[in-house]
Amino acid sequence: MPSYHLFLLPGDGIGPEVMAEVEKVIHAFESDGLATFEIEKGLVGGCAYDAHGAAISDADMARAEAADAVLLAAVGGPKWASVPYEVRPEAGLLRLRKDLGLYANLRPAVCYPALASASSLKPEVVEGLDIMIVRELTGGVYFGEPKEIVDLGNGQKRAIDTQVYDTYEIERIGRVAFDLARKRGNKVTSAEKHNVMKSGVLWKDVITALHKREYADVQLEHQLADALGMQLVRWPKQFDVIVTDNLFGDMLSDVAAMLTGSLGMLPSASLGDQNPKTGKRKAMYEPVHGSAPDIAGKGAANPIAMIASFGMALRYSFGAGAAADRLDAAIASVLADGFRTADIKSDGCTLVSTMAMGDAIVSAL
Amino acid sequence: MPSYHLFLLPGDGIGPEVMAEVEKVIHAFESDGLATFEIEKGLVGGCAYDAHGAAISDADMARAEAADAVLLAAVGGPKWASVPYEVRPEAGLLRLRKDLGLYANLRPAVCYPALASASSLKPEVVEGLDIMIVRELTGGVYFGEPKEIVDLGNGQKRAIDTQVYDTYEIERIGRVAFDLARKRGNKVTSAEKHNVMKSGVLWKDVITALHKREYADVQLEHQLADALGMQLVRWPKQFDVIVTDNLFGDMLSDVAAMLTGSLGMLPSASLGDQNPKTGKRKAMYEPVHGSAPDIAGKGAANPIAMIASFGMALRYSFGAGAAADRLDAAIASVLADGFRTADIKSDGCTLVSTMAMGDAIVSAL
Ligand SMILES: CC(C)[C@H](C(=O)O)[C@@H](O)C(=O)O
Ligand SMILES: CC(C)[C@H](C(=O)O)[C@@H](O)C(=O)O
Repeated sequence: MPSYHLFLLPGDGIGPEVMAEVEKVIHAFESDGLATFEIEKGLVGGCAYDAHGAAISDADMARAEAADAVLLAAVGGPKWASVPYEVRPEAGLLRLRKDLGLYANLRPAVCYPALASASSLKPEVVEGLDIMIVRELTGGVYFGEPKEIVDLGNGQKRAIDTQVYDTYEIERIGRVAFDLARKRGNKVTSAEKHNVMKSGVLWKDVITALHKREYADVQLEHQLADALGMQLVRWPKQFDVIVTDNLFGDMLSDVAAMLTGSLGMLPSASLGDQNPKTGKRKAMYEPVHGSAPDIAGKGAANPIAMIASFGMALRYSFGAGAAADRLDAAIASVLADGFRTADIKSDGCTLVSTMAMGDAIVSAL
Repeated sequence: MPSYHLFLLPGDGIGPEVMAEVEKVIHAFESDGLATFEIEKGLVGGCAYDAHGAAISDADMARAEAADAVLLAAVGGPKWASVPYEVRPEAGLLRLRKDLGLYANLRPAVCYPALASASSLKPEVVEGLDIMIVRELTGGVYFGEPKEIVDLGNGQKRAIDTQVYDTYEIERIGRVAFDLARKRGNKVTSAEKHNVMKSGVLWKDVITALHKREYADVQLEHQLADALGMQLVRWPKQFDVIVTDNLFGDMLSDVAAMLTGSLGMLPSASLGDQNPKTGKRKAMYEPVHGSAPDIAGKGAANPIAMIASFGMALRYSFGAGAAADRLDAAIASVLADGFRTADIKSDGCTLVSTMAMGDAIVSAL
């Protein structure tokens, strides 16, 4: 039986509650004989700041480096609204992404059949929706320098952020998108603003050349990022895999997530390069939703996005695609049985707590 | 009778067709005795490049400077896909915005009652929707330097774009938003990514301070730009005025436009500062839609966005709010009578050409 080392970062707000549920799922797979999971826990975000004045400690970074996979729940909340910029909760998340080299962020936007009617879009627009957004995660305006606020005197300040992309960064995220497309609908839509941004010009050139050189069998299309936002609302089923930069990916994946009516449902995977010797890759798995401080501690949070994030870990870190499929099926069946947390409640369904939802998924397994 | 000087830039694609219809409307208001409109025309975009190798000539820039208002239809098309970056069609549009100092872009997202069912969103989500997006238009990543692609050798290039915002730029766009809110729902939502971008930190600080100092009577709320994209899809009626930077405004206004099911219907105004002596301000009015090269020359384009853009000129440049209201009412009544161009056609309605739609609006006036 293989043995894996998981590093859990529950973080802030509803984080600890949803993390507790995924632990049940992990134990269920372990009892089932899939693998042994050695679990360690750490702090990230506001709770890390409270404990040692940084959004993540060096010791926890070292643990994250050493793990086979990191599971992170959520960071942030009003309590830390005025801590210094360098140690704000998000800085922990950004350091994990950057220092672990997790450049490929996979964000599926899937509409669960049982939830199609929960979307603000017409059911025919979202039923069966299955998009994979591939967001570049370690470059662009998130990390480019200079990034500063300069005091110009006379009451004026100047804020500067820098978007930087090198050829190799665009190429490697392009490869991830094309490889995924080959296992799905075989179509990639690349989004940038080449009409306004030089990084958009380079992005389009590099993706076009890579496609011609190595992926001519995959259908490639370019859309301007603003037009793509529009098309996501108009007719999202035209998309299979979308590949885009860090900031556009941030915006577009949130819009896509909301189409499905399932924000509390959507997982993500952030992956680094595969080590050619060991075949292993650094990876972090987290829900798309945030720390929802308003409902924290009430047992009202939806643990499905967190649990589905572990499903992505099974698929992308542990080569256990069949187990991941079983987990997805368990989630779908619990929904089909009418169990709903508050965020997705609807008439005629059974309103359940965070814990009861976790338990229901474990028994469906 | 007042006399105004209009500079018309029909541009590319469907531009000339929709511009021809707004000319009918202008003449109708003239015959009506509202004002005399002296009309001059110029070239922008691909047609300007074809004529003199630049996306707009210096002579036409001078005419735009001298005019009381510029009406622009649309630029661009596949014909100019590979012209050099500096003279691509969009460069003409960007030069107009920058050189005329048109920092305030007003983009209403209004759902016409007759079109509520044309949206991909559920009717109850969009019926009665009336949002005003106030987008900063002369700063940010659109114009910041350095903006370049550097050859690093060894097959690698590096693309750089720079987002720059100074205090005064944020303050003046904030004022536009708060002033508009006072005449509407008295609520402003400011969007940035202060959790990731230094320009977001400054943006939030400056808007917060301005609010406290001069606009405490207006309700102010902050949302992260990605979360706002999500909320636009979830429940757009929570918004009144949204104020945001150039790039986020580009993305969010496209998403908002599509909510209404009326992309071919939405106008915009781009305004500069008021001259304290003359009371005049530089202004350009243009539809939110693009040049739609695929349907150009077929009489299939919807002229309503262009006509409604002239309505915004009546309101914001010519102090003729009552005339603007009459024009809006004429558009609504033509829609209520079932007239539809191809982009908004639906069962039981009368499909009409660009020209017939223009004529119908003129007679409804
Ligand atoms: C929390 C924040 C820093 C983060 C981001 O902007 O990337 C979040 O919005 C996300 O999408 O993961
Ligand atoms: C055509 C393009 C340069 C422009 C922009 O990015 O501003 C357009 O998308 C818009 O929103 O007016």
